[in-house]
Amino acid sequence: MTRVVVVGTGLIGASIGLGLRRAGVTVVGVDRDPARAEHALARGALDAVAPGLPEAVSQADVVVVAVPVDAVADVVVAALDAGAATVTDVASVKAPIVAAVQAARPERAARFVAGHPMAGSEQDGPAGAHPDLFLAATWVLTPTEGTDPDAFRAVRSLVGTLGAEVVAVAPEHHDTLAAVVSHVPHLAAGTLMDVAAGGGEQHATMLRLAAGGFRDMTRIASGDPHIWPDICVANRDAIVAGLDEYLGALGAARDLVATGDRAGIRALLERARAARRSLPMGTGTDEALVEMRVPVPDRPGVLAEVTTLAGGLGINIADFEIAHSVEGGRGVLVMVVGESSRVGDLETALSERGYHPSHTRLA
Amino acid sequence: MTRVVVVGTGLIGASIGLGLRRAGVTVVGVDRDPARAEHALARGALDAVAPGLPEAVSQADVVVVAVPVDAVADVVVAALDAGAATVTDVASVKAPIVAAVQAARPERAARFVAGHPMAGSEQDGPAGAHPDLFLAATWVLTPTEGTDPDAFRAVRSLVGTLGAEVVAVAPEHHDTLAAVVSHVPHLAAGTLMDVAAGGGEQHATMLRLAAGGFRDMTRIASGDPHIWPDICVANRDAIVAGLDEYLGALGAARDLVATGDRAGIRALLERARAARRSLPMGTGTDEALVEMRVPVPDRPGVLAEVTTLAGGLGINIADFEIAHSVEGGRGVLVMVVGESSRVGDLETALSERGYHPSHTRLA
Repeated sequence: MTRVVVVGTGLIGASIGLGLRRAGVTVVGVDRDPARAEHALARGALDAVAPGLPEAVSQADVVVVAVPVDAVADVVVAALDAGAATVTDVASVKAPIVAAVQAARPERAARFVAGHPMAGSEQDGPAGAHPDLFLAATWVLTPTEGTDPDAFRAVRSLVGTLGAEVVAVAPEHHDTLAAVVSHVPHLAAGTLMDVAAGGGEQHATMLRLAAGGFRDMTRIASGDPHIWPDICVANRDAIVAGLDEYLGALGAARDLVATGDRAGIRALLERARAARRSLPMGTGTDEALVEMRVPVPDRPGVLAEVTTLAGGLGINIADFEIAHSVEGGRGVLVMVVGESSRVGDLETALSERGYHPSHTRLA
Repeated sequence: MTRVVVVGTGLIGASIGLGLRRAGVTVVGVDRDPARAEHALARGALDAVAPGLPEAVSQADVVVVAVPVDAVADVVVAALDAGAATVTDVASVKAPIVAAVQAARPERAARFVAGHPMAGSEQDGPAGAHPDLFLAATWVLTPTEGTDPDAFRAVRSLVGTLGAEVVAVAPEHHDTLAAVVSHVPHLAAGTLMDVAAGGGEQHATMLRLAAGGFRDMTRIASGDPHIWPDICVANRDAIVAGLDEYLGALGAARDLVATGDRAGIRALLERARAARRSLPMGTGTDEALVEMRVPVPDRPGVLAEVTTLAGGLGINIADFEIAHSVEGGRGVLVMVVGESSRVGDLETALSERGYHPSHTRLA
């Protein structure tokens, strides 16, 4: 990978530019706001600013679309139409975007590998950008039945260059998970802050008393609100379902307090503590790796099936390719994954689906 | 202040010991668990371990009761009965403790100044203790009509030695505020973590996707659950009211999403962002100070009235004394407070109550 085009040079786009440039990749930026692109250029996030998409994409290995949720599908289509080899995006919602691109360009959608880096910052725009923003973060890719293996490999490589770990998940599955771990928490934090601040005369004292726990919980509420209306509309059903589940659970917690159920309160918080303490830490490049080889039929959907099986077990995909057999009709899917106890589970799941995986531990 | 007794040598008690000893104060520890007291001694949080309360308190300037909520009132009464000059505590709930001590020892309760440091850690016990745990934190004191000015001054001085800022609040008011900024957020974080972890097969992927915002929001859920059943029972009404308000607000946010109300979502998050960004940062010792002098009648309740008026405006009390007139019946309350735009509001509020305050800016 030698040349990447970033469309949208805000916090995420500029951070990608900084990270890729540090690794020696040439990064060209496009932004409908020329001042923002110039800011990103001045920050060192870009090698050059291109006046428009068609001029920029022809020589790019990957086009990264980092524009607001509502604009992503149109920009992806424009990039595909301009002849982009591979296109990815970074939006917080995946299924509507993937569906829109497939509907608009069924013959070109194979070159679009949608993605979502699970990292961010309370800061806005290129000023908040950092080359290490994605280091050891999880970066979701959402391959579909039609995804081209070479396009997937190119995007996976870009993500790896930024130091992030790739987890493959189906688009709809991503949206459900993102609602629970990102969208619902954001709304919950904003609402908590709003309730605490709404105390009128007590406001000043209340906020004086806000200590570390409250500050931690509401930190994301200080982020830029402008992206959230689009996200909430695009992922409405999953967010409403997630909020309903949370409201139900919080109502149950309220009843534990109202009835003075000490054992119930303790059990809830013990479960939460165990779960919080088991949150995986990003393992970065120190993780031991395993190379899995899976003979596969040369047909659509194999990539999405195998990678999302791994993603469903929380396994990151450190490298990936499909080696096609010279006789045709068959190939070998080679996937390097982080070593964990789940690799055995992945082999079992693959075997149950008729595959015959094998693996080797890498030094 | 030269000698302090700390009863209960867990995270908070041991942190107080470390901070006071660093400032040259002799700290004697008492704990019903001898192993924990020895651990705190080994950590350098204590000069000595006393076998029991009566042996320890006679020469102490202040007794700090840092035991679980349910045990505080009994230990405070025991310390007062053993002749302690001044007693304070650090529990998360104040009104039931203050009421219990007043009911049990009406003639001695003037020497008990209840308190609550708004600081903590996810770690447990003396192992997690740190001398800077309270640096620039807010430490609530809850004086009442009967509070002795010398006792208040002694506790304020102890808190100042630890680097914290004193905000005075009535006990019931504290409990309402603590529910909103501490108890409800703790339960909300625990419940959010529990919901996210309850996804069964999706668990591993879900937790893989949990990024900084989710980690921030659920950090307090990794704390020790054992103190929470007592807190929830002791402050039940305020916590239930706070949870009901939060549930109502979160339900309204859910409806904004369900109806695709972009403007409403944006307005909510704009309000939250503004409030989060206005959270006061601890100002520590760099804050400019103002000395207020308030001629006061020599009667009970003046201390509580004046200090909680300041607390209601979020003003910290950096120093405090009541100088009694030699003629008797009158005195001057001298209070050093952090300089802020609210000092004028405090003077107005005092004037409305018939006081005649004046102030001087300190260098």
